[in-house]
Amino acid sequence: MKRVVIALGGNAILQRDQKGTYEEQMANVMKTAKQIVDIILEGDYEVVITHGNGPQVGALLLHMDAGHQTYGIPAQPMDVAGAMTQGQIGYMIGQTLINELRERGVSRPVATIVTQTLVDKNDPAFQNPSKPVGPFYDEETAKKLAEEKGWTVIEDSGRGWRRVVPSPDPKGHVEAPIIQELVERGFIVIASGGGGVPVIEENGRLMGVEAVIDKDLAGERLAEEVKADVFMILTDVNGAAVNFGKPDEKWLGRTTVEELRRYYEEGHFRKGSMGPKVLAAIRFVEWGGERAVIASLDNAMAALEGKKGTQVVKG
Amino acid sequence: MKRVVIALGGNAILQRDQKGTYEEQMANVMKTAKQIVDIILEGDYEVVITHGNGPQVGALLLHMDAGHQTYGIPAQPMDVAGAMTQGQIGYMIGQTLINELRERGVSRPVATIVTQTLVDKNDPAFQNPSKPVGPFYDEETAKKLAEEKGWTVIEDSGRGWRRVVPSPDPKGHVEAPIIQELVERGFIVIASGGGGVPVIEENGRLMGVEAVIDKDLAGERLAEEVKADVFMILTDVNGAAVNFGKPDEKWLGRTTVEELRRYYEEGHFRKGSMGPKVLAAIRFVEWGGERAVIASLDNAMAALEGKKGTQVVKG
Repeated sequence: MKRVVIALGGNAILQRDQKGTYEEQMANVMKTAKQIVDIILEGDYEVVITHGNGPQVGALLLHMDAGHQTYGIPAQPMDVAGAMTQGQIGYMIGQTLINELRERGVSRPVATIVTQTLVDKNDPAFQNPSKPVGPFYDEETAKKLAEEKGWTVIEDSGRGWRRVVPSPDPKGHVEAPIIQELVERGFIVIASGGGGVPVIEENGRLMGVEAVIDKDLAGERLAEEVKADVFMILTDVNGAAVNFGKPDEKWLGRTTVEELRRYYEEGHFRKGSMGPKVLAAIRFVEWGGERAVIASLDNAMAALEGKKGTQVVKG
Repeated sequence: MKRVVIALGGNAILQRDQKGTYEEQMANVMKTAKQIVDIILEGDYEVVITHGNGPQVGALLLHMDAGHQTYGIPAQPMDVAGAMTQGQIGYMIGQTLINELRERGVSRPVATIVTQTLVDKNDPAFQNPSKPVGPFYDEETAKKLAEEKGWTVIEDSGRGWRRVVPSPDPKGHVEAPIIQELVERGFIVIASGGGGVPVIEENGRLMGVEAVIDKDLAGERLAEEVKADVFMILTDVNGAAVNFGKPDEKWLGRTTVEELRRYYEEGHFRKGSMGPKVLAAIRFVEWGGERAVIASLDNAMAALEGKKGTQVVKG
């Protein structure tokens, strides 16, 4: 039996044109659960799942901002908000997976593990916060908040002022031994949701930081930790392309890690979008993984069988 | 080595007179972590932790209400909100436990498991919603919401109108096999936070319901599931008392389950407060547990040693 870590993109939980109701999210997650259960039952894979949390943590930050203004109830910092979305999304994915398995006559519990992701406190990202989060402010409010709370704020594409936070590189997961144990015992595990809660070590103590972690890069660390055979990133496009959006655009099918690294270094993949997915795929195969896959969620099973998406292997 | 399930009361995370900032909650949780690590290292106990979520889920419901009004972002239902507070509180308790253990030279990961608690869809509580949750409304708004969303609303002690939800009896945890496995392997586990997310079974499928579960009654089920020797409820009073608040008030020290059940049936313990704690203690010893303890958080270690609090044993 092979082992796969599946990194679910935002579209597995919420579509771009949706508002974020419970009903919308559950309907999407139920479709996703069908794909994953196909992989477990028909593909005979041991599955570990990770997922994004962008829209959910975005909504939560706005909820807390409004709750603070309306009711005076303190907002929680970003590390706590990240942990909250792990509970939220893990619960939804876990419950629908259990239900989909039961529908097919299989009774298995699913473990959602609240996960902390270690980052280096000297990561250069901390000197260069770049990810906009939370509400838009007018310039005056933004600058006042920056002074009061030590935030970095920027003017965001003409839409107003916004806080920016760092996006440091994930090093590994505090809960790795727990996740390993559960995977070894045959449990389906959901972990490192939203890339995990970013923590640094300060005099040996863990400390949450207000940052975001790329969920595909964190998922790759998870794939190493559970010694996965395959690391599969599921998103809303069919894979990685060179010259994306240009006349000579070329979708990558089967590719070697050397070739992909060359394209990556030539700057073919957009930062914050396909870039980290490709980097995560490269890292996994360079680490020793058998295969990394970048594919569309709709083609999950075919992609795992090597028939769709970008397939990254050793040279 | 003995095994204890510890049910932490709200005061382990937030004091009554506090607002609910991250700093307040972390400071409380750090004190709590010291008590728990004493029990692990000096008491030589295997520890499973559960906790309340009243103030946190209350804050979150208000945050989401305000976020919906201010930004039009959908609020999530109560089952999802409960899962979110499991992430929130589990993250804080887990991180501080790891840090307190490291401080004393011990490196151990802590597993926070997002937990679903099964309740009976025919539980009479569903016919009689009684727990007020969420914001206060004026009568007109409350009645409109009741009609739109199928809520039950009541006039709450002259302070306005509020939604009420059922508080069904917990039957067990969907994730019990996962929790058992981790406990057997020596991991410290945090589970069933806030009593767990209430789910019913409907044609074999799990379905979240908008309800609250008493965290001590759910903690007792957890204690059965992990075959604990001791079930300890930590709160802000020294134990259970008969004739509480009357001239002949008598605090209970060592007591038999038969005696305690008699007092319980005579109505000595307040509903929604000491009542469910006493019932949980009774259930645990009647199930076959060696000892149930109700004690003050400040005396956790002494209570576990049998020197403080109410100690419930077989007759």
